[in-house]
Order: sequence, then C-alpha cells, then structure tokens
Amino acid sequence: MADNKKLVEEITPMGEDFARWYTDIIKKTQLCEYSSVRGCMVIQPYGYAIWENIQKGLDARFKKTGVENVYMPMFIPESLLQREKDHVEGFAPEVAWVTHGGNDELQERLCVRPTSETLFCEHYSNIIRSYRDLPKLYNQWCSVVRWEKTTRPFLRSMEFLWQEGHTAHATAEDAQERTIQMLNVYADFCEKELAIPVIKGQKTEKEKFAGANETYTIESLMHDGKALQSGTSHNFGDGFAKAFGIQYLNDNNELAYVHQTSWGMSTRIIGAIIMVHGDDAGLKLPPRIAPTQAVIVPIAQHKEGVLDAAGKLYERLSDKFRVKLDDSDKSPGWKFSEYEMRGVPVRIELGPKDIEKNQAVLVSRFDRSKTFVSLDNIEEELSNLLDKIQQQMYDAALQNRESKTSSAVSYDEFKSIIEEKGGFVKAMWCGDEECENKIKEDTTATSRCIPFEQEELSDKCVCCGKPAKKMVYWGKAY
Amino acid sequence: MADNKKLVEEITPMGEDFARWYTDIIKKTQLCEYSSVRGCMVIQPYGYAIWENIQKGLDARFKKTGVENVYMPMFIPESLLQREKDHVEGFAPEVAWVTHGGNDELQERLCVRPTSETLFCEHYSNIIRSYRDLPKLYNQWCSVVRWEKTTRPFLRSMEFLWQEGHTAHATAEDAQERTIQMLNVYADFCEKELAIPVIKGQKTEKEKFAGANETYTIESLMHDGKALQSGTSHNFGDGFAKAFGIQYLNDNNELAYVHQTSWGMSTRIIGAIIMVHGDDAGLKLPPRIAPTQAVIVPIAQHKEGVLDAAGKLYERLSDKFRVKLDDSDKSPGWKFSEYEMRGVPVRIELGPKDIEKNQAVLVSRFDRSKTFVSLDNIEEELSNLLDKIQQQMYDAALQNRESKTSSAVSYDEFKSIIEEKGGFVKAMWCGDEECENKIKEDTTATSRCIPFEQEELSDKCVCCGKPAKKMVYWGKAY
Repeated sequence: MADNKKLVEEITPMGEDFARWYTDIIKKTQLCEYSSVRGCMVIQPYGYAIWENIQKGLDARFKKTGVENVYMPMFIPESLLQREKDHVEGFAPEVAWVTHGGNDELQERLCVRPTSETLFCEHYSNIIRSYRDLPKLYNQWCSVVRWEKTTRPFLRSMEFLWQEGHTAHATAEDAQERTIQMLNVYADFCEKELAIPVIKGQKTEKEKFAGANETYTIESLMHDGKALQSGTSHNFGDGFAKAFGIQYLNDNNELAYVHQTSWGMSTRIIGAIIMVHGDDAGLKLPPRIAPTQAVIVPIAQHKEGVLDAAGKLYERLSDKFRVKLDDSDKSPGWKFSEYEMRGVPVRIELGPKDIEKNQAVLVSRFDRSKTFVSLDNIEEELSNLLDKIQQQMYDAALQNRESKTSSAVSYDEFKSIIEEKGGFVKAMWCGDEECENKIKEDTTATSRCIPFEQEELSDKCVCCGKPAKKMVYWGKAY
Repeated sequence: MADNKKLVEEITPMGEDFARWYTDIIKKTQLCEYSSVRGCMVIQPYGYAIWENIQKGLDARFKKTGVENVYMPMFIPESLLQREKDHVEGFAPEVAWVTHGGNDELQERLCVRPTSETLFCEHYSNIIRSYRDLPKLYNQWCSVVRWEKTTRPFLRSMEFLWQEGHTAHATAEDAQERTIQMLNVYADFCEKELAIPVIKGQKTEKEKFAGANETYTIESLMHDGKALQSGTSHNFGDGFAKAFGIQYLNDNNELAYVHQTSWGMSTRIIGAIIMVHGDDAGLKLPPRIAPTQAVIVPIAQHKEGVLDAAGKLYERLSDKFRVKLDDSDKSPGWKFSEYEMRGVPVRIELGPKDIEKNQAVLVSRFDRSKTFVSLDNIEEELSNLLDKIQQQMYDAALQNRESKTSSAVSYDEFKSIIEEKGGFVKAMWCGDEECENKIKEDTTATSRCIPFEQEELSDKCVCCGKPAKKMVYWGKAY
C-alpha cells in the first residue's frame, strides 16, 4: 500500500513537465484511459461523474432560456454534408466514413457526425412553415467524431462528448441576441460552477467556425500560460437557411429565410478544470461540480465508537452534500493524500478525541487550512466552507490569469513576451489575416479573440504598424 | 386551425389498422421523425422529454444499487469484435463499418458499436487486478447502431438510444445475483413508472443474447396482442473473461476469471408506452414520466381576470408538478383535443365561473372524468388524481394483458389461439429447439420467455407431445 510520499511522487511536478503532470493526474485519478481505438477515450467513473455534473448545470441553464433537447442521427449522408460549401470544406478532411452496412456496400457514404448543423437544417426545413413555428431552440447531448492526427485526453480526442445547440429565428436580430445569450450562459457557467474566469469575445475571420458569419468564444488560461477555447457560439445568418431551403411565411404572408445559431461546449472543459485549478498534489475540483464534495476519514477507526460516529455523520451530511465515507482499512495518511490527489474539496477528520469534544476537523483542499467545528452545526460550517473554497478557487484562477496577461505595443515586445512569459498578450491589430498568419508563423501564438471589452493600447497594429482596428487577445493555445 | 373532430380524424382508429394508428400517433404528437439516413430517427422534443424522464428514473435506480456511469468509444476494431466467437457471429452481419478516416483508408476496419461487451471487456482486462477491484458495476448511456433491413420508429431503428450495464464479479453466484437484480430493477421501473405490467422469465437457448450463458427478459403485451421484449439482463459466466483474459488475484492469491453480466433498456420502451396505453384519441402518458403532467386551459380567456388567475395557478403548481399553461389564441376545444392527443394526464380548466367559485375543473385523460376542486387545495387534489391515474393505467394494462393471455394444451388449440385471438399463449415445451422452430414456422409466434412463475398445464410438449420440461409464454412479437 502506498504511503503519502509515494503517491505524490507518482505525479510529475507541474514545473518540471506540465504535459506529463497533466497525463499523470488523469491516469492516477482515473478520469479516463485510452482504448484500443486510436485517439478514443474510455471516460472512467470519476471523469464521467464530473461530466454528469457539468451536464446537469448546463442543461438546467439551457432549459431556463426555453431550449428543448432532441436527438439527431449520428450519420450524415455525404450529399447532405456537402450542401453548405464552407462547412464541408471545414469538416470533410476530418470525418470518419461508413462505407458498409453488414455485408453490403452503401450506395452513398455516411460520415459519422463531426457536428450536426446539416442534420438540424434538414429537420428544420421539414418542420418550419410559419412565423408561428419560430424560434426553434433545440439542443442535443451526444458524441461527435473528428479524425485528429494527434490526440490528448479530454483536450483533443477522435471522439468526444458535447452538447450542440441549434436554433432558428425569424430575424437576424433574434439570432444575434441568442448567439450572445448562449455565450453569456457559457461564461456564467464557467465562472460560477467551474470557478474558471473567461474572456468573452469574437473570433477573427480566420478562426471562425466553418460556415458561420460570426463566431464568439470564451477563452480561459491554463496554469502553464496556454489558452483554451472553452465554449463557442456561432451566428450563421441565413447562409445555411439558403443552402437548405429553410423558409417560413412571415406575418405578412411572405416567404423569408430563417436566421440560425449554434453553440457548443464539450468534455474538453474537463481539461480546463484540471489545468486551471490543479497543483502538484493533484486535482482541485470546484465544490459545485466535484463528484465528492467532502470525504469523511475516520481517525483511529479501530477504537470503539469511531466508525459508528463516522457512519452517523455520513448519514446526516449525505442528504445535503455529495459526501463519501472511507472506512476502508487503509491508513489515514494514505486516504489524506488519495483524496487530495482526487481533488475532493473538503476532508472531514473524525477521531476519538473529536468525538469526545463533539467536534470534527474540516480540512480545505484549496489551502490545507484546518477548522475545528462543532458537530452541532457542521452542515452550516461545511456549506460555508464549500462556498468559500469555490470563491477562493475563482479568485486564484483570476489572479493567475491576470499575472499572466500582458500588453504589447511593439512586435519585439510581443514576441519576447510570447516566448519568455507566455500567457495572454493583448495587442492591437489591423484586421488583416496576413498579420495573424505572420504572428502564428513567428511565435505559434494565435488570435484567441477580439474581446468585448476593448482597450486602445496604441493606434497601430502590433505586427505591421498599419492603423489598428481592434485589440486582440493572443496566445499559444491547446 | 383544426377543430376537435378534425384532429381525431387524423389518427387512424386502432381497430382499423393498428400499425397506421401507431405511426399516426407518433407523427401527430411529434415524438419522432425519420431523417434522410435510412432507418435513423430524429427524436423530437416531446419524444426526447419522455426519454429524459425514463433516463432519470432508471439512472437513479441503477445508482442506488452501486452502479457507476462511464463512456466507452463508439468504435470497435474488427479484431476486438471477433474475440468472442458467438458474439461476433450474432452481431457482425448487422454492423456499420467505418473504413476511412478523412482521406485515408484505415488499416483495420472499425465497426460502430452494436453493443459494447467487447469494449468493456478490454477495459476490464486493463483495470482489474485483484479481488479488491471487484465488483465493477459500470453502465453507459449512448446510442448503438444495428443495420436492420426493415425499421419502425422506436421499435426497430438502425440507430437507437439505450443504456448498457456491464458488470464483473468474483464469483458465478455474484454474477447471477446481479443479473436477476437488474431484471428486477427493470420490472419494477416498468410497473411503477411506466404503468406497464411485465412477465419476468428466461429466454430459451435459441432466443438468448449472442455470447450469453443465460438471458433474462421482461415481456410486455401491446394493445394489439403482440409482445414486446422490454428489457434484458444477461449472465455471461466467464466466457467473455476467458476470451479477453480478464483475471484477478483472489484472496488465496490465485488467478481466477471474473464472471460478467450485461443488461439494457432502450428507446424501444417508448414504443411500448404508446402501444400499451394509447387509444383512438392519441397517447396516454403515465403521470410519472409524462413531460407535462397537467395542462391549464383557460376558458373564455378574453374575460377580465381569467388569464391572470390562470397565470397565478401555473406559478403555484409549477413548483411541484410538470405543468404547462396554454394561453395561446387557439380555441379551448382545439386545446382539449390537442392535449388529449398528446396524452397529458390531467387537463385543468379554469373559467370566469370557476374563478368566482374559487374552483377549477380537473379532467382525467384516463377516463375523461371531471372533478371540481377548490383552488385552496388543488395541489393535493392534483397529486391524488395523478397517483390515481397512474394506478388506473397499470390496472387497465394488466387487465388487458390478462384478457389476452390464454393457455393451450393441444397444438390445434395453440395454433387457433395464435391465429384468431393473439396475445400471450402459455403452453408446455419439451425444451427442443426443433419445436420452437416448427411453432415459428407454423404460426410466426416465438417463445417469449420461460417465466419464473411456472404452471403445470399438462405433462406434454404442446408441439411434439414428448415429456414437457417447462411452461413457456409464446406470442407474436415486435
């Protein structure tokens, strides 16, 4: 049986090799494992429980805005995928093709959905007739497949789980409003539930979704100073509607095209949770989505009354919290580091002396602080501590992002920050894709977004020196 | 806008053409629609909301028994599928094959999972080491694909949604216990939540799952007298463990093979809900899984105070019930038949006179009975009525099944019942597959199950006259 030291040694320190730290954590905490299918993950119980909590939180937020869930087929006929030109160009190179059903070759190949705009469009063209049918606010939870060359658990896998919302509206204004509304839902969810601060903004033409008029994004910053696109919301205008013939009779009895949006968040966000909050001891899970919010560890559990008291405490707490009692025969020290590694926000120690004093010890995963609390009001104390940890995690993540966010007005400055410090670099941009390409070539950094909160750092593009149009967040990204 | 009569006319009467009645209902109530991919459904919001309620109810029951959710890849390499001989023979003829990723041909074909035993086995062989790792009680919610020749919405589609549980145990006894435990979970769920009575029993050798030692089933009876296999639970013994090398060190430090089970329920069960409970006016949804349990229809809503009172009632009820207020400009008559058709268990009428008398009218979808209730305790009245309807629906379904269940001791009797009356026929069987084959050939009926509750109708096989071993439920099936 491993002792404290052993367990921690098994995780490569973050400062030594961030990528190995990341995969060590995933492996040791059993979040997911690769399968024999290249680039496809087995999401294990602990990882899936996090995803279930994410689903629950997001789904409730969607439904509050009127969204309804549906399920579309996982296959898309090749001819359907090809209907919208930009879309097929963006996705066709990275799809899996089904060519045979049983022993028969198919007349038309089917791709396994990389995203489902085409299927939703086909369905909408069948069911939308009049302005009374609008808006349609559909979402589905499913898996999608993209034939990636290189893969990393959660961050980039051939198959991943996500939700994809697809809406149809009578007017361009309605579609734009919904696009921003859903971006705000994602941002609120990340900040409140996942304790991850995000930058909201618009993608550049180069970085936008294949087939979209505008793509909006929330960008978060990992502990190693790399950015991660954490959720996107697209306004399609009436481009797909024209390609798929989705028309409705407006209240003047005239045929008009609908305006559409789509928006998605995926299991990728679990990678963000790991890389925003984790430390060298392992995961740190935000209380609101942690599968186990508190673990009770009995101390000297062989002594009379200890397991009994721990069992009673478990019963009391399990009504209100996601709580676990570990009364296995492993040592308290082993359990301490095990649940630290698994990122359980609070450890509750209960030993003979505590029972005598009618108290328990709450230990915070966030900063290892200990609080002795009376058993009489432990529910309230635990609830307060979980709220406090949630806030502390957000504050720490925000502070980390701010400490890794710089501004650059000259290209030399820009390049040296990207190379030496990393993180987000705010810099002015002329709006030309050439500058984006040059920056990517020179530094591997990409434009993360044109943030809604603009600043005027200078009046010149950081790259070419021509008049600047926008301030952009730049950074290396996952 | 359609009036009452019009709407009802649109549904083919059950007695005239049951198959058309079924598809009419699905179409008119917008449960699902076919897509441009042959045999693949779009599950629309109303259908998906039923599935979500089924998921919620089943998932909670699973978790109470210690089951954890995971997610496995949707692809299975051909070599992995072939590892267990019976299993591949059962499934290979009906799988979809992925042969290309992007522009490249794959070195090995991948099949889209028709079921995931092979993937779970591979994963278990990686993670199970010792008796301390057992049991493993995993489940996943996902979609699977089977390349069916003929398809029908919900009942048989190329892709369908389901859950598949896969467990690994130290002993044969543990595996058998879990197999029966999960069958009982399904039976309890069907009876309590879906108001569908089921026969529990074992499948014959001929009808069991490919690769299983024993398959257990719950069988329900539709309104037209056809049976529907509603959930299955399989005991694999150590067959898969041997094929996949899933061994563990037991507490004597010896290597032993695990014993496994799997069990599943699918969107097929939505077909059963339709066909067990529906009538010529449309769906009848059991209150516990109805997306809308009660709909408030304001009467004379143009009159002062009506919409206001209806809105207040909605606010009051929506805390405790899944309730909907239809204040659209359609006529009350249209709304009455619309929500009848959609199977909403209770309609709440509220008009100026009701408001004056501080009352509302509750109308039951089950038997159209009306109750005038005081607004003071409408929550309690509604709750009681929903419970009553749930019970009435179960009782009616049970009565229908009993009226369509016969016994036969001679083969002539057997054949004439199958042909003329349909339903379940109980009859003795010698245990030989030849008799099953002959019965199927002569009547198209199949053995549904060897029920746990055995009766000794005679001592001879109904088909061949040889000594009987078991009583079997026979019937034509979906």
